[in-house]
Amino acid sequence: MQRLSTSDAGFEKAFAAIVDARRSSDDDVAADVRAIIENVREKGDAALGDYTQRFDRHVLTSDADWRIGAEECREAYEALDSELRDGLELAAERIRAYHAAQLPENRDYTDEAGVRLGARWTPVDAAGLYVPGGRAAYPSSLLMNAIPAKVAGVKRLAVVTPTPDGNVNPLVLAAAHVAGIDEIWRVGGAQAIAALAYGTERIARVDVITGPGNAWVAEAKRQMFGVVGIDMVAGPSEILVIADGDNHPEWIAADLLSQAEHDPTSQSILITDDADFAGRVQDAVARQLHDLPTGETALASWDAHGVILVVGDLSEAPALANRLAAEHVELAVADPEALLPQIRHAGSVFLGRTTPEAVGDYVAGPNHVLPTGRRARFASGLSVLDFMKRTSFISASDDALRAIGPAAVALAEAEGLPAHAKSISLRLT
Amino acid sequence: MQRLSTSDAGFEKAFAAIVDARRSSDDDVAADVRAIIENVREKGDAALGDYTQRFDRHVLTSDADWRIGAEECREAYEALDSELRDGLELAAERIRAYHAAQLPENRDYTDEAGVRLGARWTPVDAAGLYVPGGRAAYPSSLLMNAIPAKVAGVKRLAVVTPTPDGNVNPLVLAAAHVAGIDEIWRVGGAQAIAALAYGTERIARVDVITGPGNAWVAEAKRQMFGVVGIDMVAGPSEILVIADGDNHPEWIAADLLSQAEHDPTSQSILITDDADFAGRVQDAVARQLHDLPTGETALASWDAHGVILVVGDLSEAPALANRLAAEHVELAVADPEALLPQIRHAGSVFLGRTTPEAVGDYVAGPNHVLPTGRRARFASGLSVLDFMKRTSFISASDDALRAIGPAAVALAEAEGLPAHAKSISLRLT
Repeated sequence: MQRLSTSDAGFEKAFAAIVDARRSSDDDVAADVRAIIENVREKGDAALGDYTQRFDRHVLTSDADWRIGAEECREAYEALDSELRDGLELAAERIRAYHAAQLPENRDYTDEAGVRLGARWTPVDAAGLYVPGGRAAYPSSLLMNAIPAKVAGVKRLAVVTPTPDGNVNPLVLAAAHVAGIDEIWRVGGAQAIAALAYGTERIARVDVITGPGNAWVAEAKRQMFGVVGIDMVAGPSEILVIADGDNHPEWIAADLLSQAEHDPTSQSILITDDADFAGRVQDAVARQLHDLPTGETALASWDAHGVILVVGDLSEAPALANRLAAEHVELAVADPEALLPQIRHAGSVFLGRTTPEAVGDYVAGPNHVLPTGRRARFASGLSVLDFMKRTSFISASDDALRAIGPAAVALAEAEGLPAHAKSISLRLT
Repeated sequence: MQRLSTSDAGFEKAFAAIVDARRSSDDDVAADVRAIIENVREKGDAALGDYTQRFDRHVLTSDADWRIGAEECREAYEALDSELRDGLELAAERIRAYHAAQLPENRDYTDEAGVRLGARWTPVDAAGLYVPGGRAAYPSSLLMNAIPAKVAGVKRLAVVTPTPDGNVNPLVLAAAHVAGIDEIWRVGGAQAIAALAYGTERIARVDVITGPGNAWVAEAKRQMFGVVGIDMVAGPSEILVIADGDNHPEWIAADLLSQAEHDPTSQSILITDDADFAGRVQDAVARQLHDLPTGETALASWDAHGVILVVGDLSEAPALANRLAAEHVELAVADPEALLPQIRHAGSVFLGRTTPEAVGDYVAGPNHVLPTGRRARFASGLSVLDFMKRTSFISASDDALRAIGPAAVALAEAEGLPAHAKSISLRLT
């Protein structure tokens, strides 16, 4: 953990290093991923079977080896504690409501020149969702990816998920049941992304692929960008807590650790104007780490990437926050409203002392798939728009073409595109 | 040119081959582009200077070698024919009006559980626009990229454009004047994309890069995706004309050639229900090719990729069009309205006999930067959204957290994320 103060002589240099740091493991998996993709593209299911046996120790032979049925998902759901069932249902309902209100409006109008113009939004035909196996198999992620696609109107949703040694995560199956998914393939890794992008004998290709994954999955998605749509390049995630001295140190410590427990590459940053409070949070983090079942991961993250930054005045915080462009920003201050408009680059903002980031991971409604690694400078969280596309349309009457056509003819000729000019001028004679 | 009929025995196979064809030149430039990017990232302006001297035969020494000033753009504008000046102004005004209406609305509401939820759209801080030199240096493209960024509220717009042998295209400068751009760098290729993405001593880094370019530029953008936002992976473009037999064959021929003249990899496809009309269009294309100054390119495209497809009934056309997912679709039929809702995958649709595609390239208003190479299945044309990002926000009162928090605690514990659970449960006690 690094402790800084804006009044330190070396502050700017130290802060710039934090902003520019690449926290990702620099595994160069690009070449391996390229080979896997080419192999799946050429050999289809046979290649998928080979990789799945090799990487997941799962043999794909019968239909049941390949695919998990809707019945199995329903059974997993019914076997859950009612508390968890209710939790999944509440989360799904709130995610659905928030995303339904995101549906974009079509446009259709005729302007003063008499040209009818518009744009129509339509869903993609098919989306693929990657759901990690193992440690990061989160039912909440399945809901956060699947529900926006469903709300967008996507007809076919195909989930791919590795089942190492044949093990499936019943919570993920239960979430699939809640989300209404009936196509789940027991494949993972770069090979699963390739199968979704190009299609195989069994798995029909999709148009968009979303969902989190390890370095191989992320690189495969990056390589398939353009063949299909993808949500984003995901990287290590982060939280920035801006807190005054009137917060409970234990609360803020838990918030910082909730990010740190995800992964050793996660980053938790506290900005406060109260140096004593900063010390109390630091102590609380140390205490909580001691008892935390995920303490090993959280400690690795906090040690390597944690930052406590003391400012002279909280009015300095927004400028620093905008340079960090964090995935999650908590405003644990007396008047979060006053700060909100100044936070221009952030994936999601959590206002006030009783809005811990974790509530947004599950049940608040907005998507928890958010831009990481400073990408909030230019990227947005997952939304229904990631599963839709817009088609513009133009309709010019004869009169309208006479009004605007000659300008287009002049520009086309100046650009050296005579057939463009002719396609208009023929209609003007 | 390939002529097909849906009644041919081999139709499905031939059509599938057209849908799946990769028309791009398969230059494997990825490794070279990677080396250029790394070099610019490490050595900055020195590397930019080396590459610009080598590839563009332009030496970057003085400030004027590096950068084109606003004054030079104004002079280029003033030196234009008034017809062209008016054309650029009309285009700019109409593009501005169409894109202004695209600005998304923010959201801010409190739901029944008492949770305040919302989303705020903000522009990126800086955008970089690539403008090709040489044959494809189109002022219209500059307007189509720059104006949406300006409308989005982007404060800084940096244009990069190669000036081979020191030559600049005055029309492009004039368009820059019209668009209000005052930062133009005389660099191009993958090295210019790297400079925009990582920044150099002279060129500050940007957040989003848009604009067309050759294979090297496209690959550089693809590699920088994630470091910055990019508009899309551009490929060879295409037009699909759906026409009944009541059209003038010369008009439709000109429309097909307006796409073909762009590039030998462009594709023009006619679908008609009238075999005689198909023949008349084919003849008209041959005649027009003879006189066309861009005939060599257009012929290469038409020979290699042109398709005339005769259907038994125009009701077959939408399903074929959706498989082709073309960049541009013309509906040159008596009742284009009836077909429009069935065209689900298209970049832009042009309705009726007096709406040639070329009008949309210049002055209609909607963006002419559109998804190519079947990507209209999942991608949209350039819009203000490409220069903005959305930040969600959540505010839970103490009561609201008590209403939805326990479900989040249960889910977090089930996912094995105890610090997530604790950050909420501490606030509930």
